[in-house]
Amino acid sequence: MAEHAADRLGGVLCPVITPFHEDLSPDPDRLIRQCQWLLSQNVGLAVFGTNSEANSLSIDEKIMLLDRLVDAGVDTSRMMPGTGCCALPDTVTLTEHAVDLGCAGTLMLPPFYYKDLSDDGLFASFSEVIQRVGSSALRVYLYHIPPVSKVAISLDLVERLIKAYPDTVVGIKDSSGDWNNTNAMLQRGWDDFRIFAGAESFLLRNMRGGGAGCISATANINPAAIDQLYREWQSPNAESLQASLDEIREIAMAFPMIPALKATVAHFTDDAQWRTVRPPLVALEQDQCKSLIESLLQKGFAMPGLSAR
Amino acid sequence: MAEHAADRLGGVLCPVITPFHEDLSPDPDRLIRQCQWLLSQNVGLAVFGTNSEANSLSIDEKIMLLDRLVDAGVDTSRMMPGTGCCALPDTVTLTEHAVDLGCAGTLMLPPFYYKDLSDDGLFASFSEVIQRVGSSALRVYLYHIPPVSKVAISLDLVERLIKAYPDTVVGIKDSSGDWNNTNAMLQRGWDDFRIFAGAESFLLRNMRGGGAGCISATANINPAAIDQLYREWQSPNAESLQASLDEIREIAMAFPMIPALKATVAHFTDDAQWRTVRPPLVALEQDQCKSLIESLLQKGFAMPGLSAR
Repeated sequence: MAEHAADRLGGVLCPVITPFHEDLSPDPDRLIRQCQWLLSQNVGLAVFGTNSEANSLSIDEKIMLLDRLVDAGVDTSRMMPGTGCCALPDTVTLTEHAVDLGCAGTLMLPPFYYKDLSDDGLFASFSEVIQRVGSSALRVYLYHIPPVSKVAISLDLVERLIKAYPDTVVGIKDSSGDWNNTNAMLQRGWDDFRIFAGAESFLLRNMRGGGAGCISATANINPAAIDQLYREWQSPNAESLQASLDEIREIAMAFPMIPALKATVAHFTDDAQWRTVRPPLVALEQDQCKSLIESLLQKGFAMPGLSAR
Repeated sequence: MAEHAADRLGGVLCPVITPFHEDLSPDPDRLIRQCQWLLSQNVGLAVFGTNSEANSLSIDEKIMLLDRLVDAGVDTSRMMPGTGCCALPDTVTLTEHAVDLGCAGTLMLPPFYYKDLSDDGLFASFSEVIQRVGSSALRVYLYHIPPVSKVAISLDLVERLIKAYPDTVVGIKDSSGDWNNTNAMLQRGWDDFRIFAGAESFLLRNMRGGGAGCISATANINPAAIDQLYREWQSPNAESLQASLDEIREIAMAFPMIPALKATVAHFTDDAQWRTVRPPLVALEQDQCKSLIESLLQKGFAMPGLSAR
C-alpha cells in the first residue's frame, strides 16, 4: 500500500524539556503550558527526547505525561514522542500507547546499553517492536545520536528497515553532529523518507539537500526563529537567518544544554521551579544562569508569548 | 553504628544469564535451576548483571524473576541483584524490592544514558536512591563498567559515597578491565570495602591485594574452578589455577560473551532453548557453537552436576 505524504511529519520539532516538581516528580501542568506555547510558535512536539531527560523518566511517568497532554487537548498530529528504551517490552509498551493516543509518529532510539552491536541485532530490535505493536498507524522515526547513545544506526540498517517496513519506517533524526552522515542519507534518495537534522545548525543545509526539517533542543527557547528559517529557507534572507540561529545556539551550548534550556525558560517565565533537573544532571549555578541570561539579552533574545503560569 | 563484616559479601558471584522462552519472554524455571546449580558450586548470584541481559528486561520482568527465585527458596543471603537503571524511580523500585525480599546486596549501575556527567550529578543519583529506599538493610555495591555503560565511577566518587553512607555503600565491582584502577582502589585502604574484580582474570591479583573476590560472567560455565582459586589463592597451586581459568575464559571471549555462555549451557544441558538471546543481541550461529564447544572439550571442560531439566 502506497504511503501518503501527508502521513509524514516535517518542519521544526522540539524535544520538549520536562519540568519537575521540587520532589523531582514530573510536572504535567508546566509541560502542557510549554507544549501549547511551542505549538503556538508552529513547532511540533518531540516529547521524551534526549533533552527531555526522557531516559531519566520511568515508563509509567512517560505514559502519565502523554495522557495528560492528550487530555489537555494538545494536538497529537504534531506529536512524535520518544519511545525507544533499552528493554524491548518497554519500547513496545510506550510505542503502543503513543499509537493508541493517535500520535503522528514516534522517535525511536536503538536499545542503548549493550555496545558494539551488529546491524542484525539492531534490525531485530526495531523489527520486533514494529511487529509487536502491529499497527498500520505506527510511524517510526529512527533516532541516531551516537554521541550520547553510543549505539549508531548505520545507513545500511536504515535502508534495510525502509525496505522491510516501507510504510512504517518513515524518517530519521540525525543527531550525529556530522553533516557528512546527514548528507550521505539525503543522497541515497529514499522515497519520501523524512530526514531531520538533529540541530538547527544544519537546518539550511538539510533543507537545501531535500531534508524534512529539524528536531532541535534549542527549539525549546528559540522556536519562532527556527521555524522562520524552515519556512523561508529559499529566501535570499536564509543565510542571515541561519547565522542568527547559530548565535543563540552558541550561547546555550556554552553551558550544559538541558540545564541551560531550563534556566532560560525559568528566567523568561519568572518561575524558578523550571530550573530543576533530575539526577544525574545538575542544575546551573546562579552565576552560570546570570551569565547565560545576560548573553542572551545582549542579543535581544526574548520568548514572546510564553506565560508564567 | 559500626558495620559487621558478616553483612558484606565476598567470594565468587555470577551475573546469571537469563533464559528466554521462544517468544522472548523470560523463563523463571530455567533461571531457578541455573541459580540452584550455581549455589551448589558455592557461587553467589549477581542476577541482573550485564551478562544477564538485565538492561533488556523491564522492571516488571525483573521483579517477577526475583519473586520466583525467592519463592523457589533460592538463598537471598547469596544474592546481589543488579538494580541500577537509567531512571531514578526505576532504580528505587527495584532496589526496594530487592531489600524487601532480603537480598544481601544490590549491584548498582550509575544512570547510563547521559554521558560526560559530573561526580556531583552521579553522587546525587546514588544518594537519592539510598535516601528514597531509606532502609538500614540496604547494601550497595557500585558497578563500574565503563566499557559498556560509558559512564565511569571515579575513585573520588566512591570515596565520597563511602563517607556519606559508610554502612550502605560497602563495595564495588570493577569491570573496567583495567587492573590499575582496581589496584588504585585497593590501595586507598577503605575500611572493609569489598572490591570485586569484574572478571576472574584478575582474581588472584585482587585477592593478593586484599580484594573480596570476583563477579564474573564466566562463572556461569566455570563456577567450581573459579571458586577453587578464590578459596586456594594462598596455596602454591594458585598461579596454575589462575592459568587454567584464563584458558577457559579465552575460549569464551573469542565469541560474543553472552551468546557464548548461553550456547555453552545449552550444549551441556542438551537444551537448545538456552541459546535464545533478546535483541539487540544475536545468538551464535551453529558453526560458532560447534567451534566453541569443540575448543572447550579439548580442554577437558565439563559442567558437572548441571542437569538438563
